[in-house]
Amino acid sequence: MGKRVVIIGGVAAGPKVAAKLRRLDSEAEITILEKGEFLSYAGCGLPYYISGEIKKQRELMETSAGIMRTPEYFEKTKRIRVYNRTEALRVNRTKKQVEARRLDTGEMRDFPYDILVFATGAKPFIPPVQTVDLDMPGVELTCLDLGHVTTLHGIEDAERVRWTIREKLARQAVIVGGGLIGMEMTESLVKSGIDVTILEMMDEILPLVLDSDMGILVRTYCRQKGVDVRVKERVLRLEGQEGVVRRVVTEQRSYPADLVILAAGFRPNSDLAKSCGLETGPYGGISVDSRMRTSDPHMYAVGDCVEILNLVSDQSAYFPLGSLANKQGRVAAINIAGGDEVFCGALNSTVFKIFDYTVARTGMSMYQAQEMGMEAEYSIVPAPDRAHYFPGAKRVVTKLIAERKSGRLLGAQFVGAGEVMKSVNTVACALFYKGAVEDLSNLDIPYAPPYASAIDNVCVAANVLRNKLTGIMEGISFLEVEERRKRGDDFLLLDVRTTDEFEEIRIPGSLCIPLGELGGKIKGLPREKDIVVFCAVSLRGYEASIILREAGFTKVRVMDGGMAVWPFECEHR
Amino acid sequence: MGKRVVIIGGVAAGPKVAAKLRRLDSEAEITILEKGEFLSYAGCGLPYYISGEIKKQRELMETSAGIMRTPEYFEKTKRIRVYNRTEALRVNRTKKQVEARRLDTGEMRDFPYDILVFATGAKPFIPPVQTVDLDMPGVELTCLDLGHVTTLHGIEDAERVRWTIREKLARQAVIVGGGLIGMEMTESLVKSGIDVTILEMMDEILPLVLDSDMGILVRTYCRQKGVDVRVKERVLRLEGQEGVVRRVVTEQRSYPADLVILAAGFRPNSDLAKSCGLETGPYGGISVDSRMRTSDPHMYAVGDCVEILNLVSDQSAYFPLGSLANKQGRVAAINIAGGDEVFCGALNSTVFKIFDYTVARTGMSMYQAQEMGMEAEYSIVPAPDRAHYFPGAKRVVTKLIAERKSGRLLGAQFVGAGEVMKSVNTVACALFYKGAVEDLSNLDIPYAPPYASAIDNVCVAANVLRNKLTGIMEGISFLEVEERRKRGDDFLLLDVRTTDEFEEIRIPGSLCIPLGELGGKIKGLPREKDIVVFCAVSLRGYEASIILREAGFTKVRVMDGGMAVWPFECEHR
Repeated sequence: MGKRVVIIGGVAAGPKVAAKLRRLDSEAEITILEKGEFLSYAGCGLPYYISGEIKKQRELMETSAGIMRTPEYFEKTKRIRVYNRTEALRVNRTKKQVEARRLDTGEMRDFPYDILVFATGAKPFIPPVQTVDLDMPGVELTCLDLGHVTTLHGIEDAERVRWTIREKLARQAVIVGGGLIGMEMTESLVKSGIDVTILEMMDEILPLVLDSDMGILVRTYCRQKGVDVRVKERVLRLEGQEGVVRRVVTEQRSYPADLVILAAGFRPNSDLAKSCGLETGPYGGISVDSRMRTSDPHMYAVGDCVEILNLVSDQSAYFPLGSLANKQGRVAAINIAGGDEVFCGALNSTVFKIFDYTVARTGMSMYQAQEMGMEAEYSIVPAPDRAHYFPGAKRVVTKLIAERKSGRLLGAQFVGAGEVMKSVNTVACALFYKGAVEDLSNLDIPYAPPYASAIDNVCVAANVLRNKLTGIMEGISFLEVEERRKRGDDFLLLDVRTTDEFEEIRIPGSLCIPLGELGGKIKGLPREKDIVVFCAVSLRGYEASIILREAGFTKVRVMDGGMAVWPFECEHR
Repeated sequence: MGKRVVIIGGVAAGPKVAAKLRRLDSEAEITILEKGEFLSYAGCGLPYYISGEIKKQRELMETSAGIMRTPEYFEKTKRIRVYNRTEALRVNRTKKQVEARRLDTGEMRDFPYDILVFATGAKPFIPPVQTVDLDMPGVELTCLDLGHVTTLHGIEDAERVRWTIREKLARQAVIVGGGLIGMEMTESLVKSGIDVTILEMMDEILPLVLDSDMGILVRTYCRQKGVDVRVKERVLRLEGQEGVVRRVVTEQRSYPADLVILAAGFRPNSDLAKSCGLETGPYGGISVDSRMRTSDPHMYAVGDCVEILNLVSDQSAYFPLGSLANKQGRVAAINIAGGDEVFCGALNSTVFKIFDYTVARTGMSMYQAQEMGMEAEYSIVPAPDRAHYFPGAKRVVTKLIAERKSGRLLGAQFVGAGEVMKSVNTVACALFYKGAVEDLSNLDIPYAPPYASAIDNVCVAANVLRNKLTGIMEGISFLEVEERRKRGDDFLLLDVRTTDEFEEIRIPGSLCIPLGELGGKIKGLPREKDIVVFCAVSLRGYEASIILREAGFTKVRVMDGGMAVWPFECEHR
């Protein structure tokens, strides 16, 4: 008789373990217990199901050949026994069995195992927000007690939002949390004709995804799209009437709302694992070794309920991402089947779509590097995603981050309307190999005008970063420049674009000396002052800084990314 | 006084050396000698200029800020002296000077140098084809003596083709050579309303780019687009009348033609370097070390005139690619300025567009690996470029190649309508680090439904390849299957898709047993025969092969890519 393998969780990582294990071991008795109704569905597709881009629920549940992943499908084609609407309640490690309840009948049943796999996923974090129904003063409520307040976790949540939209019950939505899910929901709701306000309590949106200088580019873009994005606003209270949410009150003001999406992040769903004594990590996720084995050798854990190794920091991390869940599932299955496969860790590589922009990241941000006490440097390069003269070329802003002393790559971030995957994948791969920034200068990635520039964006960003690391160039963030402008600091903001470009659009208070005329006018410039140079993208700005330094100017810095990324006040023709 | 640096060649690598050197060394006296009229133009953009997608010649010559790269531009903004229409004729290594002629005046002039840089580029290979003008029998001609016969090398060639199109002189074009340039020109000409025939003398088109199994997918697609693509046809003769080409005669037949594009590849333009005694390599390119220095320590060489290291084979190679030219230019400039920078080699990473398909490759092909006596294995995986349920998902066929014994990655190829850059860049980066196929299983590249599948294509291709390397799965090429069918071999072609899928479209002579029914019908299958299993993409085919092998069938192979890539005869509903 085969090994009895019981898998708790049937959404992503669990079915992956089951399917791969079946291919490796035809004898194993494989059982999946899933609390919800639906199996193996594409949770990451929910925002597009809400917006209607994906028309039918079943599209999220079909294989690429159009076959529904029902319990019968698993049984028939893979000989995997699935119990859905079945909640695992207790694990008896001595008897090696799981006690579970069939939710429809209340029936209790024991599932004996030789190997137990936790694939229990994540649960949305519910922010501690006071909730009142004005019709029921004095009654203590939690956020989710009010109607039209929801997280976005499973298909049930998505159906709830779709229903509110279809019934025209939502006109003004407030999204609590400007993270990844908040952003994806923003697009869904705006496309559904709903006014959206995003409330983020941190200094900038996407705090775990991007540094503030990249985050502000996304925020500015969302505002152009008519989204009211607020940062540094903590939600204090939800107010409802007749059982339905009506208003979101923050420390600063109050927003009418007939739909509230709580998108304040996820936590590992590790309660059952903890209750049977498995070790967990600093984020509350189940601790696993590189084989996805827990502290009990008969138990594995995979997906959004585990902590894994951050490949850049070498520390434990919590990255609840579908791509990683699948990889971990494969690794666990191979090891359960007696093989030896390693999941070596991850980079928190993330991508999402917000209207026509793509936002992506991998590795560490500057902020995260600094938090860890590392000295890091970065470059910011705005550039078209293909040859600049090729029709349809669209801009991408690339931020590349490296350790200052060693030149080791730490991470990258990308924001823009252009193609981003080719770049984030490249850096993610280099990070996997613990590569250095100079590797990216040399990398032979292909070029043709419809697909890239002769010197690829990642390559340019690496070259700029190397110039900064070797001290040929000193940079300054546009955030710092704006702060100094606001403070009224006395410094020279020197724009070296052509006068035509300057007249078209310029930063108030900047001085224009086109690069070609700089040599002739250099004597008139103040030697004692800080000089910040820039151009359209800061290549000419860099050349100007070289000319100035050679002429003996010592306090010259080049502003990151030039006019192309300046997100503050401008004067126009 | 600064170092005198003379650069021969002003199209791609030369100006890059000059511009980077200027930023590193404000004293250097930098001079570019360029035989042609135009400087620093985007040669790779020419096919799109011919098709009219790029409207104006000057777009190919402008910086991204819209500034024309004229000699005056180089002089004024970069203090680089440029002599265009100036041909370098001789190099005197003793006196360290270049003798050059101004083409407009015939004036000769010596340019003394401390450092000389060869950036002399490539020249198109002119195939040895008999050429006759029927109005001038007996007169010996070369191909290019006939009107409307051209290579596609510089702007002048492109203008010639544009003129033929504009004046409606071309209706039927023959492209001699089914390589990369031939493919790009095919799209240009078809878009211009011209009938195109491609003649390739090798067994399959794109012989230096793809293996035949991927090449045939491109050829089939071109035929669907109305292009007459012929392989194994060697051109014997061009026939003209009144000085203009009329007909292309091959070993098999004769094609009317009023425009002939010779696209038979490039050779390094190393004559001048050879004549002054520099060492060259097996391909005739100038030999350089990793600093881009030639055998003369005062001379560097960069771009399409040099040979470089193939990073996979560790042998000398000739990869005339614009992306590499730029990288080499940067490296040479840093070393000339006294720095120490290495160009470590390349992967022949290539991408091109043909109608709505993208074709890309990096590293070695199976054919190239076998030529080198390596034992290699590969996988072929057709899959959508984003979540299969996401609107607009398009298919890409991925071929991944690794060394059999070590599992070291050797190369990859991609063909399809979907996004390819994200994948080819990923593999190119892994090849740069001499990665193994298992690295790609584990790589943390980002996922979201609009951009990728939860298990990325590259990751799937790596997993399939690992299954083949470990012997869990044995594959067979569709080329071999078709050969056996044609020969009338007695083997079972087993389609495990559903009966609905089978009725829609099927391979003649195949037998359909849906995967879910295989267990029940296994006894009726012939044990002595070779069995080739497949499905839509060969995932179910793989599962079927496992079931068959467990039932004791030993001669079971899975057909690469399934119906999705089958390029031969089909029966339809």
